[in-house]
Amino acid sequence: MRARVTVYPRREILDPQGKAIRDALSRVGFAGVDDVRAGKSFEISLTGEDPEAARRQLRDMCEKLLANTVVEDYSVELLDGGAGVQP
Amino acid sequence: MRARVTVYPRREILDPQGKAIRDALSRVGFAGVDDVRAGKSFEISLTGEDPEAARRQLRDMCEKLLANTVVEDYSVELLDGGAGVQP
Repeated sequence: MRARVTVYPRREILDPQGKAIRDALSRVGFAGVDDVRAGKSFEISLTGEDPEAARRQLRDMCEKLLANTVVEDYSVELLDGGAGVQP
Repeated sequence: MRARVTVYPRREILDPQGKAIRDALSRVGFAGVDDVRAGKSFEISLTGEDPEAARRQLRDMCEKLLANTVVEDYSVELLDGGAGVQP
């Protein structure tokens, strides 16, 4: 089973990397970019067939290792047909 | 219009960060993790209403700034109803 975990800075936290990318896009000529948030993406291949168990395990991975939940939000999606889920 | 751009190391390129995360997940007790690929995710808010123009612009951003296409692959998704597209 394949899953995608996305980790972004929390909305209320400044995102200087995202701002720098937005400014750089403007500088190289892309108009109409309102906002950019820069985060991390992990594509994870899991053994096991139970989507609910996989989602639980992925959320647990985020809480323990993949995200710093003080300053970051995460979301978990199963790529093989499972719908996205917010923590 | 909101979009998500995901940038990963190319399949044929070694991904030491992904491997380190896979090993760390095993070490903290997560069994059944076959593989992890570590990449970047950008959530981009664009003005403009034409999904086809937005996709073209986003691919252009990847080629020029967001991805190093020698060693990285990217994908572009529109989050407000547009379907994902591979470059």
